[in-house]
Amino acid sequence: MPDDMSAPLIRDRGPGGDSSASSEPGSPLIGILGTGDFSRSLARRLLASGYQVVVGSRNPKRSAPLFPEEVEVTSQAEAARRADLVFVAVFPEHHSTLAAAGAGLGPALAGKTLVDVSNGLQARRDRDGDGEGDGEGDGEGPSHAERLAALFPDSTVVKGFNTVSAWALQAGPRDGSRQVLLCSDCPSAKRSVKRICRRLGFTAEDAGPLSAAREVEDLPLRLFPAWRRPALCAAALLAFFYLYNALRDVVQPLLLATGGSQKRSPLYKLPVETLNASLPCAALAMLALVYAPGLAAAALQLRRGTKYRRFPARLDAWLRARKQLGLCAFTCAALHAVYSLLLPLRKSARYKIVNMALKQVAEGAELWDEAEVWRMELYLSAGVAALGLLSLLAVASLPSVSGAVNWREFSFVQSTLGYCALAAATAHTLLYGWDRAFDPAQYRLYLPPTFVLAVTPALAVLAGRLALAAPCAARRLQRIRRGWESGRNIRFVLPEDEDGGRSDSSSV
Amino acid sequence: MPDDMSAPLIRDRGPGGDSSASSEPGSPLIGILGTGDFSRSLARRLLASGYQVVVGSRNPKRSAPLFPEEVEVTSQAEAARRADLVFVAVFPEHHSTLAAAGAGLGPALAGKTLVDVSNGLQARRDRDGDGEGDGEGDGEGPSHAERLAALFPDSTVVKGFNTVSAWALQAGPRDGSRQVLLCSDCPSAKRSVKRICRRLGFTAEDAGPLSAAREVEDLPLRLFPAWRRPALCAAALLAFFYLYNALRDVVQPLLLATGGSQKRSPLYKLPVETLNASLPCAALAMLALVYAPGLAAAALQLRRGTKYRRFPARLDAWLRARKQLGLCAFTCAALHAVYSLLLPLRKSARYKIVNMALKQVAEGAELWDEAEVWRMELYLSAGVAALGLLSLLAVASLPSVSGAVNWREFSFVQSTLGYCALAAATAHTLLYGWDRAFDPAQYRLYLPPTFVLAVTPALAVLAGRLALAAPCAARRLQRIRRGWESGRNIRFVLPEDEDGGRSDSSSV
Amino acid sequence: MPDDMSAPLIRDRGPGGDSSASSEPGSPLIGILGTGDFSRSLARRLLASGYQVVVGSRNPKRSAPLFPEEVEVTSQAEAARRADLVFVAVFPEHHSTLAAAGAGLGPALAGKTLVDVSNGLQARRDRDGDGEGDGEGDGEGPSHAERLAALFPDSTVVKGFNTVSAWALQAGPRDGSRQVLLCSDCPSAKRSVKRICRRLGFTAEDAGPLSAAREVEDLPLRLFPAWRRPALCAAALLAFFYLYNALRDVVQPLLLATGGSQKRSPLYKLPVETLNASLPCAALAMLALVYAPGLAAAALQLRRGTKYRRFPARLDAWLRARKQLGLCAFTCAALHAVYSLLLPLRKSARYKIVNMALKQVAEGAELWDEAEVWRMELYLSAGVAALGLLSLLAVASLPSVSGAVNWREFSFVQSTLGYCALAAATAHTLLYGWDRAFDPAQYRLYLPPTFVLAVTPALAVLAGRLALAAPCAARRLQRIRRGWESGRNIRFVLPEDEDGGRSDSSSV
Repeated sequence: MPDDMSAPLIRDRGPGGDSSASSEPGSPLIGILGTGDFSRSLARRLLASGYQVVVGSRNPKRSAPLFPEEVEVTSQAEAARRADLVFVAVFPEHHSTLAAAGAGLGPALAGKTLVDVSNGLQARRDRDGDGEGDGEGDGEGPSHAERLAALFPDSTVVKGFNTVSAWALQAGPRDGSRQVLLCSDCPSAKRSVKRICRRLGFTAEDAGPLSAAREVEDLPLRLFPAWRRPALCAAALLAFFYLYNALRDVVQPLLLATGGSQKRSPLYKLPVETLNASLPCAALAMLALVYAPGLAAAALQLRRGTKYRRFPARLDAWLRARKQLGLCAFTCAALHAVYSLLLPLRKSARYKIVNMALKQVAEGAELWDEAEVWRMELYLSAGVAALGLLSLLAVASLPSVSGAVNWREFSFVQSTLGYCALAAATAHTLLYGWDRAFDPAQYRLYLPPTFVLAVTPALAVLAGRLALAAPCAARRLQRIRRGWESGRNIRFVLPEDEDGGRSDSSSV
Repeated sequence: MPDDMSAPLIRDRGPGGDSSASSEPGSPLIGILGTGDFSRSLARRLLASGYQVVVGSRNPKRSAPLFPEEVEVTSQAEAARRADLVFVAVFPEHHSTLAAAGAGLGPALAGKTLVDVSNGLQARRDRDGDGEGDGEGDGEGPSHAERLAALFPDSTVVKGFNTVSAWALQAGPRDGSRQVLLCSDCPSAKRSVKRICRRLGFTAEDAGPLSAAREVEDLPLRLFPAWRRPALCAAALLAFFYLYNALRDVVQPLLLATGGSQKRSPLYKLPVETLNASLPCAALAMLALVYAPGLAAAALQLRRGTKYRRFPARLDAWLRARKQLGLCAFTCAALHAVYSLLLPLRKSARYKIVNMALKQVAEGAELWDEAEVWRMELYLSAGVAALGLLSLLAVASLPSVSGAVNWREFSFVQSTLGYCALAAATAHTLLYGWDRAFDPAQYRLYLPPTFVLAVTPALAVLAGRLALAAPCAARRLQRIRRGWESGRNIRFVLPEDEDGGRSDSSSV
Repeated sequence: MPDDMSAPLIRDRGPGGDSSASSEPGSPLIGILGTGDFSRSLARRLLASGYQVVVGSRNPKRSAPLFPEEVEVTSQAEAARRADLVFVAVFPEHHSTLAAAGAGLGPALAGKTLVDVSNGLQARRDRDGDGEGDGEGDGEGPSHAERLAALFPDSTVVKGFNTVSAWALQAGPRDGSRQVLLCSDCPSAKRSVKRICRRLGFTAEDAGPLSAAREVEDLPLRLFPAWRRPALCAAALLAFFYLYNALRDVVQPLLLATGGSQKRSPLYKLPVETLNASLPCAALAMLALVYAPGLAAAALQLRRGTKYRRFPARLDAWLRARKQLGLCAFTCAALHAVYSLLLPLRKSARYKIVNMALKQVAEGAELWDEAEVWRMELYLSAGVAALGLLSLLAVASLPSVSGAVNWREFSFVQSTLGYCALAAATAHTLLYGWDRAFDPAQYRLYLPPTFVLAVTPALAVLAGRLALAAPCAARRLQRIRRGWESGRNIRFVLPEDEDGGRSDSSSV
């Protein structure tokens, strides 16, 4: 369901509005080279923010109707000559034509600031060498911005705005797309572009010298980098539990059946039943992975006696992946719920009930196993509680919701409610297991029941949390988090290491 | 669950804050005529942004306690006389009283800018002529702003701020309500109002001359205009499939039963079973409608050999409706899931199982149909996959989520994952159909089974997508999207038509 | 799933960027005392907004690597001496050490503005007296800001920024956290801090004199204050209906069974069945509570004949709690749906079907009760409709969605669709009840069936809504909402009481 990329509210002006009307006096005249979607959106936004705009086109007559009336569309040379600051919005492979002998914008642009808005090329990242001859060996060379700087040695190049979409320019900046990263070697040029940023409603962030442009250019090519590891981790856990369950519930009965006389093949369990048995195990294991790094961090702080030493990089990355891990766990849990609810819908379930009835008719006795009834009512209740809490956590992870709560509320939801969800999920699993962990018949092929594997890390994490809640540990940890250090026991020596009653630092 | 419309955090100042304290020196003195909710919220916001505010009331003594202490509440004449710029925040039917002989604000307002914040009247749009005599024939006449301009010929009228709610003014602008549309015939007046907009935290958009005021006034009266067609389309499809299914599953058996001896009427299927059989068909057809226009646009670009010609208006509107169509499809699919999960809950389902058991007891044989078992396990799996992917797409359509991803991620979710969802839904339907499409007994009353109708457009769209993925088509399309045109084969002639490595344009 | 608190995009500058480069000329030099998380994030944000920053640390050498290169890290005395305006970002219990004889920053800070960013202490609110001796009796004394002002009598103290998290500073302000509350006794100091606020991208709100600092300091300690009453209300209703259902469905059969010969104990119903019977009752009662205050407000306005008198405080609080009440009702309804879908999954349900089959085999007759079949199909349909509408309302309550609709759309969703949901839920309950309300056998222990209790308030609210829709009431109400008052029947006397065609006021 792609978004609507047009902005019908911003209409072209009728004849009533004269062309230079809406620009504020004293503003610099902004030039834009190129007439593509980005150029058009940028021109409208600049205009709406009170700038005068001149667009340079190779074919001004053909391009002019694409722009609002207040924008002057002229030749590239003329635009370059007149503008005080120039956005370069042509494809990077054509940067060289701007400096070529014919077009020769070099002298006209001398001493001016050029803003390069180009993105990195897909090819560079994907390394699939599409062989279309994009020019100067795009593989690992300098960034577009650096090459542009080399083409126009007398101008100053600022890299930026490439993370902003034409859509964000038209509709006004929104939450996620407010940030504009700028890099340049010239502080004053960076300053002027920052000022434009702010007036357009964006937030400028300094991203360092021009040598950092490559990284900025590649930002829009990233595909959910924060999700890669958590998703891989979820997939690996799910695959492991699926194979383990298939071994226990399908392969083993098949092997046994060869000797026996069982009629029905258990293969039909693979698409739904085995998957449904694996999803909750993966979810519980991932939930343990969400809360384990916080415990590790707390333990490390306790042992070191300070919060002022950096965590190992691996732990740091793990701490940063908690949100994604948690949402993966929630997805597995939600799928488990859907699959479980599907179970009675299946033909196989209906056949089984009918056949059960047949057997009971033959035996002539009513069917009622009080223990089984209680086990199921209880583990279903715990499961609903766990899923309900996880749903709350997932809703609280939405940017607009998490942005509307204060830090204490955020911590309450993600830490307190999160541990409640972990406890409920553990209870769900233990109640599901009932007494089977102690039943030797369950250890087929010498493999323990799957739920035993899944519940172990969760129990370990819960035990660790309880240990940290012991008064001595909790008090020491709280002091460390408020800046106390074990080496220096006179507290008032160090007020500057503390930060105004805040404990934004990693909570367990 | 209506939102909380009060803002308890912004409290009236105590005696410690002197009245002119928080306005910045050199700011214009802003007047507001009227003392309603909007006036009060505007006054607070202006104050918080550093302006001095004077409010004109017919009854200053009674109105003063409604405003913060720093705001001066005085007579309308006095406020009009002193203010540099005046917001007119009285009901439009009372604009004339402001200019009337008694009140006579005309001279005091001469040469000043009036900002008309009034909305269009419901009546104008709904045309239900409530006959309450709202004055000068509100039907199709000039806009409120134009009438105000006629009443005060020596003042300049700017239309604006009517799209902003009192709540947005109090709480600070939020995402959707940041935009302020302004129209006026006087550029300099527009400029000053724009400056105020920006200082209040809003984004000013130029909406043209005052003759466009009518459209701006009617904006707040719109009721989900983007949803009207997609919702109608969903309703029509649903109605069609419902009638078709009712014909095949209820009417036809009823007709047959008149001659036969069947005891149970199939009418009970109408509320749940028939609806549940129609929902997935409507969902699949709508999902095909989501991805069809992208294919049509690509085909058109391929045939024309350029991306620089506008699409037909109808195709353009269709492309813009994809998000809404997709969310309607998701709603149908989610309802289908809920109804399906309800099936085993129903008394009728329980009765059927019991009766099945009765029959089996009579036959003395166990019940197990391996093909039926596999068919159901497989189509349920595909259905869960399709619904899961559609849920992801729906979550990614939330403004705060879609605002936080870059363009490549957005395209990955909406295009790649979207096609996966379409493929999974098609597989779900084909597996559900199994071999019934080739079973002549299914063609009752010469009507093909419903799923055949529903799956055809989806298969066509998937085939079209595959055709576009063929190397020759894909390469040509990519070149066109990067600005290449078939008529002009020397690429470097046209750098200005391209836009910095971006491919924001319509993705398939 | 805790959020990722780091902002890897903002990298420390390489050697290419000289240290004072990115600050704008003429900006004040901002000092920060303290080097904690908040201090570091604030320094980065100030830098990104074009300020020069100097940080005062007790141990500059150790702290310097924690800050970007452009930030000067020096001694506290030096930072205090050089800065034009100083943020105090040390723990409040160490404020006194800043003024102590040794450090003695008093003279250096004389005449300057100090911004106190500290939060209230947990202890103060929770009153659990942790006895760690946080100093000067933190219980009910003056605010941190007032104490700081007492320590530095020659400086001006502004309280603020404490509601902003280090994360919001780093990532740029987001929706909910945009607002910065400021209080101070000095208007000009407040003005300068406001200017900084705005340049950092936040919205400054005046929160009064310094004596209001206590309240501002306690804001970040609040734990969902708006949710407390609605959640309590939901819990109370749920508990009441649970006990009532347990009495009717479990206790009464147990009492009867003592005399009889029933084999199975109904106790197994407690975890799932009784809860599932109580959830919809609580949901329906809460939904009635959502729409009752709007009716009460309308009735009060009708009786008073004006909208210009305040509602009683209790009604006002109730009106403000509608969103939370509605979301609690939705949660109960959603849990009811999940529990209902779980029912056929349970062993007990399977046993019951098998035993039903046994009984039918003994009787030799097929099982089919047309009335029961219809009752269930119909009440399930109404239930799905109610839940679907409630889900729409819940999605529309998300900040980013409700921020993107205009007022008329908001009112359509929350009022029109909301009443439809209430009507559908009432129909669901009445259809569930079928003819049982008139069946004396249902009045066990003289208690009416639970659904009768739950449906009564909903019916009353629907009847009230219908009464208000009667032409005479509706017309009068509309006039009142547009500013008309019953005492004054010449309308044009009062244009200033009205607000530009807007009807943002409480809708029914």
